[in-house]
Amino acid sequence: MYEAIAYRVLEGVAEITINLPRYRNALSVQAMKESLDALNRAEDDSGVGAVMITGAEDAFCAGFYLREIPLDNGIEGIRDHFRVAALWWHQLLHKIVRIPLPVLAAVNGVAAGGGLGLTLASDMAVCSDRARFLCAWHSIGIGNDTATSYSLTRIVGMRKAMEMMLTNKTLSASEALDWGIVNRVYPDAEFRQRAFRVAAELAAGPTHLQAMAKSRFHAGWLQPIEECTEFEIQNVLASVVDPHFRPRLEAFLQGTKADSVQVDLG
Amino acid sequence: MYEAIAYRVLEGVAEITINLPRYRNALSVQAMKESLDALNRAEDDSGVGAVMITGAEDAFCAGFYLREIPLDNGIEGIRDHFRVAALWWHQLLHKIVRIPLPVLAAVNGVAAGGGLGLTLASDMAVCSDRARFLCAWHSIGIGNDTATSYSLTRIVGMRKAMEMMLTNKTLSASEALDWGIVNRVYPDAEFRQRAFRVAAELAAGPTHLQAMAKSRFHAGWLQPIEECTEFEIQNVLASVVDPHFRPRLEAFLQGTKADSVQVDLG
Amino acid sequence: MYEAIAYRVLEGVAEITINLPRYRNALSVQAMKESLDALNRAEDDSGVGAVMITGAEDAFCAGFYLREIPLDNGIEGIRDHFRVAALWWHQLLHKIVRIPLPVLAAVNGVAAGGGLGLTLASDMAVCSDRARFLCAWHSIGIGNDTATSYSLTRIVGMRKAMEMMLTNKTLSASEALDWGIVNRVYPDAEFRQRAFRVAAELAAGPTHLQAMAKSRFHAGWLQPIEECTEFEIQNVLASVVDPHFRPRLEAFLQGTKADSVQVDLG
Repeated sequence: MYEAIAYRVLEGVAEITINLPRYRNALSVQAMKESLDALNRAEDDSGVGAVMITGAEDAFCAGFYLREIPLDNGIEGIRDHFRVAALWWHQLLHKIVRIPLPVLAAVNGVAAGGGLGLTLASDMAVCSDRARFLCAWHSIGIGNDTATSYSLTRIVGMRKAMEMMLTNKTLSASEALDWGIVNRVYPDAEFRQRAFRVAAELAAGPTHLQAMAKSRFHAGWLQPIEECTEFEIQNVLASVVDPHFRPRLEAFLQGTKADSVQVDLG
Repeated sequence: MYEAIAYRVLEGVAEITINLPRYRNALSVQAMKESLDALNRAEDDSGVGAVMITGAEDAFCAGFYLREIPLDNGIEGIRDHFRVAALWWHQLLHKIVRIPLPVLAAVNGVAAGGGLGLTLASDMAVCSDRARFLCAWHSIGIGNDTATSYSLTRIVGMRKAMEMMLTNKTLSASEALDWGIVNRVYPDAEFRQRAFRVAAELAAGPTHLQAMAKSRFHAGWLQPIEECTEFEIQNVLASVVDPHFRPRLEAFLQGTKADSVQVDLG
Repeated sequence: MYEAIAYRVLEGVAEITINLPRYRNALSVQAMKESLDALNRAEDDSGVGAVMITGAEDAFCAGFYLREIPLDNGIEGIRDHFRVAALWWHQLLHKIVRIPLPVLAAVNGVAAGGGLGLTLASDMAVCSDRARFLCAWHSIGIGNDTATSYSLTRIVGMRKAMEMMLTNKTLSASEALDWGIVNRVYPDAEFRQRAFRVAAELAAGPTHLQAMAKSRFHAGWLQPIEECTEFEIQNVLASVVDPHFRPRLEAFLQGTKADSVQVDLG
């Protein structure tokens, strides 16, 4: 069904694998359309509790696929290509942030340009010790995009965001952990198995509550406290009238727990 | 005067102690009303220069007191309880942020759910090495609240906020220090004495200037630089016409200092 | 041409040196006017690719020059002095943030009060191991200014911002690095030479793309993702129609690189 990505649902995890390893998984417009379609399918599938985004073979995602830019129609042709491409990559990134499911970036290798953008837009990220992270836009003469002007400062703060972008610095896996870009680094030999376990545990969690947390964090960044609490109480009231609530409350009051919702990152 | 909390003013510190140790200081609606009342008293008391919030005995605050939720009136009874309870806990959290006094959370033990919310809403936090911090909402089936969608990302950034909430992770005292949730960890045997010294030194500082800094940081997060400087100059002008200013300026110009305003966290 | 600062352009770097070492480079109104004028000149000079701000001799900047406050006209005279001074220091700080050039603070010594504000408003900062950083406002009875209510929380988060301001803490160079206030610390003997190399490498980078990143980070902090991507695509389209783009794209497609844009901080 898909040409540029692979999609499967396993243990509640909608796994999207960018599958263009010849180009280090640089995203073609086709790959962006398919990734967005896959996210829409994941959102519509009641059996899905989390999304994992990863790359086939050695790379995670080397950004956008620059070889499909038409060079023969002059500057207008290039500009028009970016206009259309942007329709798709923006929708893809907006959906990663707005989808009511936890999204885990499983960064198996290099994450450059748009690959960094995908990593940062995801809710959490784990990476292989072979992974590396770089902005790359300035090397090819393009302004930074893929919502890095949204996500990077929210994760590393203004100072480190400027350093990463203005120096075009490449971060190793351990530097990315130290900067807070990833939540954990795993040895490459164990990486795919451990990343999937994290995704599966996220998928087993209370999806409606995870979605509330996710949407609140993104909104709350931009709101005064009084606006945050107003929306929090709307979430609390929705959650206590949900059938999910009462058995957990009763288990808690009886000193037992209905289920564990802990995700073990190791 | 109070049933669920203890309140005293000592060395300029308004000390609010949640005093429901049987329930690990989980906040009843009564405790929230009393805490809000105590904050209002502290604000009105010209002898108060700082607020310290702590817990009696072993726990800091285990969140909200779930045993008072009425279970016999069906889902509407539960929902109505949360509607009323929210009136109080929101006012309590708003007041912690808006009160023109430094507020120190002295986290003597577990801070779970709303206890984490109280810690994060306070201006600074110190903890015992026995303390631990967890979200807990997802264990009992409730959407996160107590302004964590305001405070958590502002303190630990978007990535770690997602990790803490979505994995339901428990942080030790040293992890909380490493993540920046607390400013210092003290050995449990010395904790109450050292936390009080910090509060007393904060209380001895220039309250009107501390209040300006506090309100500016909360507002400035949401403002462009040009709006920040406009309000900063209003504060500067108010401070230089205050009788507090001239003796300090003159002491500075003479190479002495009228008073130290340094708070030693050790 | 200037009395209170020195200005030169070398290797594309507009170097502004606060030159009032008798007062540890505390900024007089004259120094602020001249610094703003120098920034305007740098912006107008097509040969300038980066700005570096530093201090003559031992100090970076000890804040504002308090000795020029008129003490003989009562409180109104003091207030009027601050009203006028604020016109200049606000414009200076706004310009550091809004100028379409990377700005490096080269903190050669103490950065107190307004000196801290200059450091934080700059895009990046490096410092000598002799540098130290402190708020200082509360020692002299003034509300914090120089846009610290904008910049400090964006760099160190809400919790550490409160600690630095409310405890009036002095940070050593290594603490400033640990907190993320500076990007690198260099040994004092090498400091001026190494800081200048960083500025020169920033100056050699793609100025129009650096300016896009800078303005996007400041704006993106205050915008939802959908607004960020709209402005990012405007930047992308402007960058791909710029003559700078095509040779870099072609070099990339041929597996070579037109130029390195990496800045080596060491």
